[in-house]
Amino acid sequence: MLKSGATIGIFGGGQLGRMMALAAHRLGLNTHIFCPDPNSPAFAVTPHKTIADYEDFAALSEFASKVDCVTYEFENVPAATASAIIEAGTELFPSAKALEISQDRLVEKRFISTVGINVAPFAKVDSQAELEAAVSKIGLPAVLKTRRFGYDGKGQTILRSDEDTKTAFNAIGSQPAILEGFVPFDREISVIIARDQHGHVAPYDPAENVHENHILKTSTVPGNISSELGEAAKNIASQIAIALDYVGVMGVEFFVLPTENDEQLIVNEIAPRVHNSGHWTEAVCIVNQFEQHIRAVAGWPLGQADRHSDVVMENLIGDQINEVTTAVESNTQIHDYGKAEVRAGRKMGHINRIFPKNSDQ
Amino acid sequence: MLKSGATIGIFGGGQLGRMMALAAHRLGLNTHIFCPDPNSPAFAVTPHKTIADYEDFAALSEFASKVDCVTYEFENVPAATASAIIEAGTELFPSAKALEISQDRLVEKRFISTVGINVAPFAKVDSQAELEAAVSKIGLPAVLKTRRFGYDGKGQTILRSDEDTKTAFNAIGSQPAILEGFVPFDREISVIIARDQHGHVAPYDPAENVHENHILKTSTVPGNISSELGEAAKNIASQIAIALDYVGVMGVEFFVLPTENDEQLIVNEIAPRVHNSGHWTEAVCIVNQFEQHIRAVAGWPLGQADRHSDVVMENLIGDQINEVTTAVESNTQIHDYGKAEVRAGRKMGHINRIFPKNSDQ
Repeated sequence: MLKSGATIGIFGGGQLGRMMALAAHRLGLNTHIFCPDPNSPAFAVTPHKTIADYEDFAALSEFASKVDCVTYEFENVPAATASAIIEAGTELFPSAKALEISQDRLVEKRFISTVGINVAPFAKVDSQAELEAAVSKIGLPAVLKTRRFGYDGKGQTILRSDEDTKTAFNAIGSQPAILEGFVPFDREISVIIARDQHGHVAPYDPAENVHENHILKTSTVPGNISSELGEAAKNIASQIAIALDYVGVMGVEFFVLPTENDEQLIVNEIAPRVHNSGHWTEAVCIVNQFEQHIRAVAGWPLGQADRHSDVVMENLIGDQINEVTTAVESNTQIHDYGKAEVRAGRKMGHINRIFPKNSDQ
Repeated sequence: MLKSGATIGIFGGGQLGRMMALAAHRLGLNTHIFCPDPNSPAFAVTPHKTIADYEDFAALSEFASKVDCVTYEFENVPAATASAIIEAGTELFPSAKALEISQDRLVEKRFISTVGINVAPFAKVDSQAELEAAVSKIGLPAVLKTRRFGYDGKGQTILRSDEDTKTAFNAIGSQPAILEGFVPFDREISVIIARDQHGHVAPYDPAENVHENHILKTSTVPGNISSELGEAAKNIASQIAIALDYVGVMGVEFFVLPTENDEQLIVNEIAPRVHNSGHWTEAVCIVNQFEQHIRAVAGWPLGQADRHSDVVMENLIGDQINEVTTAVESNTQIHDYGKAEVRAGRKMGHINRIFPKNSDQ
């Protein structure tokens, strides 16, 4: 169990690393950010940084020797990078296994299926021939996604016709891919869940998420989610966390599918880290997702994931960030990530609008 | 109005400076801490620091040139230090006048009286003869306090007898002092108020404060304070902030005195800074005192000071800080200041216990 004054190393210097650092600092812990980008926003909130490539093994070795454990803000930490930390005798949370599974869509889908949880029908696609076989099996429409490095809609394309089937594999760069059956979902929800080093789990309430241009726009809690469906989503998230022997905060994204008499949950993907759809916890939970993550990786007991208010989180994309200094609505909490450059489509900050619990908003 | 990426300079590297820095970082602002103590806890949460004496004018000049405005965590910033910042063309908030008034108990009492607000009877004491004259005028019991540098009960002594009158001036070091009539108060309350650069004020709800060994132990909101008395306290705090043309967050401490049919408020002292009795705002307000202060000094509009829950803040003194990693009550939010050395009587952190509004706790 880390004591006050211990140092948590963080791979990744974006807004998630920055917000993890702020949470650690409130707990009396220090942070050291490792990121190749010299303009990382997280560098502005801690005195300890390493600017180096993730496969600079001398830098990794020095980093590992200076920190008391390591965590990360993104799932694409290379396997060799994770190994370097572990070989240096420094603990890594979440584990290398969580990284291995979540950074490959095919491995992730197979893992989730093995746990007995519903996912969309899927098939491996390594070639045009495999794509055609997959389309025969799964049918159209379907979505072809690269197995690795996709995010915010990048690295994927929808197949609606035989014509699309001819061009899709080439369109995503002829990379190892996965074909997923198109899920006629009604809504998207997510559960942020924490699991500590003693196996206790603490799921937050599910959020209903709305995307615009493949980027998360709002997360609403409570969303349009029945209590049964919400409990089911929390249970699935718990099962996945337990199956992974997970330590830290994880995001689990679901599609909600209408069925004849009811609704059904399909897991879309998991993210082994704090998650954009959990930013609402900062405003309305005693212990938010960033603090829960730090508590878990530091070996502390988790705090309670209860929520005292209702909330709508809205991402500020591109120049929407300029609103924050002018418009202050009375029920609004803002968070500006301090990014040096405003770019279209870039996540620059977020707003949490807070409402008394069970109000009509 | 400071934009995202601007830098706020802060005099003082203790927990208040640290918490102001954390609040600034959440708003996308950078911070630069100036403090002579190389072990300042605030140094652990920002990459920008100056370790120098407050009257090191070369260091002050360089500091002023690197930041976009300057604020402070303590009222004993020397006048020459404040002047150096202003002469360098950098704005200082709250103003040098707020420092001048609040760092001398006699000047402060005179100022508050001038605004038309009740204070305890007081008299200037620069010598044994003046002390005796003051005792004749005010009567016993009374409290003799140094005009400057007193805090947490230091630099003061109670006079109950003629014998005490003979030794008291010597006991406080024969320094310029003030004799204050002993106020038979029933309770202590405080109001934290913010005022922005356009003159808008936003007082938080009053807290009822309990001290142990002259150190704040708990602040409870709502306290045992009638709504009339609470409104009166907020009004007095507003009058003082307006009379000072104040910018930033200020703490105003009151004594509540029983009268025959009612209760009366006496202002004990003002603190031109974020205040220990406002730490509860961190847990139950959309915009806490630290963010309000940063908003004000940055030229932003204030956020709302509303409270969504009831709360009891408890300071963790000395080795009470060790509780935080073990005992996590479900309704508790903790804050550890990350101080390197645990010392008896030292403020090491605080806990906020949160309750639904208007519950019986």
